[in-house]
Amino acid sequence: MAVEYDGTAFCGFQWQPAVRTVAGTLEAALASLLDEPVKITGAGRTDSGVHASGQVVSFSTGRDFPFERLALALNSALPEDLRVRDAAIVEPEFSARFSARERTYVFVIFNRPEASPLLARYAYHVWRPLEVGAMIDGARALLGQHDFRAFCGVLPEGGNTVRCVRSLTIESRGELIRLDIRADGFLHHMVRTIAGTLVECGTGRRPADGIAGVLAGRQRSAAGHTAPPNGLYLAGVRYEGGYDSYAEPPMFRW
Amino acid sequence: MAVEYDGTAFCGFQWQPAVRTVAGTLEAALASLLDEPVKITGAGRTDSGVHASGQVVSFSTGRDFPFERLALALNSALPEDLRVRDAAIVEPEFSARFSARERTYVFVIFNRPEASPLLARYAYHVWRPLEVGAMIDGARALLGQHDFRAFCGVLPEGGNTVRCVRSLTIESRGELIRLDIRADGFLHHMVRTIAGTLVECGTGRRPADGIAGVLAGRQRSAAGHTAPPNGLYLAGVRYEGGYDSYAEPPMFRW
Repeated sequence: MAVEYDGTAFCGFQWQPAVRTVAGTLEAALASLLDEPVKITGAGRTDSGVHASGQVVSFSTGRDFPFERLALALNSALPEDLRVRDAAIVEPEFSARFSARERTYVFVIFNRPEASPLLARYAYHVWRPLEVGAMIDGARALLGQHDFRAFCGVLPEGGNTVRCVRSLTIESRGELIRLDIRADGFLHHMVRTIAGTLVECGTGRRPADGIAGVLAGRQRSAAGHTAPPNGLYLAGVRYEGGYDSYAEPPMFRW
Repeated sequence: MAVEYDGTAFCGFQWQPAVRTVAGTLEAALASLLDEPVKITGAGRTDSGVHASGQVVSFSTGRDFPFERLALALNSALPEDLRVRDAAIVEPEFSARFSARERTYVFVIFNRPEASPLLARYAYHVWRPLEVGAMIDGARALLGQHDFRAFCGVLPEGGNTVRCVRSLTIESRGELIRLDIRADGFLHHMVRTIAGTLVECGTGRRPADGIAGVLAGRQRSAAGHTAPPNGLYLAGVRYEGGYDSYAEPPMFRW
């Protein structure tokens, strides 16, 4: 299923006891609809406050159900901040997480002296004026395959911190700045740390040509701050065979 | 002062006892800053759930204050869903409401089968496919000076329901449709009833060439439904002398 949510009122994607999570909410709705316990797997385990316009989840069930009507049936039971956009039957070996070949995240910055009440949930407010050219210059060193350990929060199991960033674009429109980043995979806090570091290039506090050195040094302390979760959107996941759940956040269709 | 707010958690603009309103929240912050009671006047008395990117408010005070720093001082005391963008000293006879010469509202529609969690607060979800051309055709009859009684909720004091719509544009981008409407003044629920009526033209339930007859008949029951408040934004107010507080809602900069 392709899923959209407002992450503000969820304690992240992953199931946790006694708190409201995206997975827990979906599992409860599915269990009630299919009348059996359901465990789902998500393509990206988004943190608390992170949004999704193109999250993908998979699950197995022994029940028969008219699956072309699954999205409609689930949406009538789901809370307003979580919606299923699409559902399809896939091969039994498919996993939303492990079959993914590429993910796309969007990060939105709002750059104006005073914060915006209308964007409080949906963009990172930076009051210092940002030089978008310097952010683009800084981003260049991140393209391609690198060890992104300096941009990683909690290390992944196995410790492999090499990822391939296939595209990274930065575009401004009025007071909004939008980063789009596509990679074979992402580390914990990777997009938010990249966003925070590039913001520091944009304010002039960090030289744009210093990013290659940060990567090479592999020290988290050399990278910038972790930007807040409210500007981050899991926008799409691409799978072998070509299916891509990509959808821009609906209010930032540029 | 030019003011932006997310109307979701306010019971409208106007002060009311015991509930959270935009005016009440601003008055409390001003009173605390200036250490005297303050009553404010708003250019538009937006309903519960209606947003503003360019509301204007005025007030009188006997206190001395460095008013160039008023926005900064107030914003540090205001809740996240309300911000002052600008403040200036004006002549004593100025009233945000009665000195206004023109107001601009924006109404945003989201047109897709399933609702969007990310736009739940910020757009009117219409699941039936909309024909934007029919909406534009329907809107044409509304341009210019007319008696808008058929598009009025509660009648105004004095009963004058003649208003002049100076521009009305409808533009679609992806799944979003945006109406911009500028007039010398608006009646209660006027924009929302226009939006609801044009949506009915867009779905084909109402002929686009029937709007002139609705205006002429002056019967509220002949117009369409009142669209919900969450798609509506008071975007700007223009005054004699040329000041205009106009600002697009920050996420819908087209």
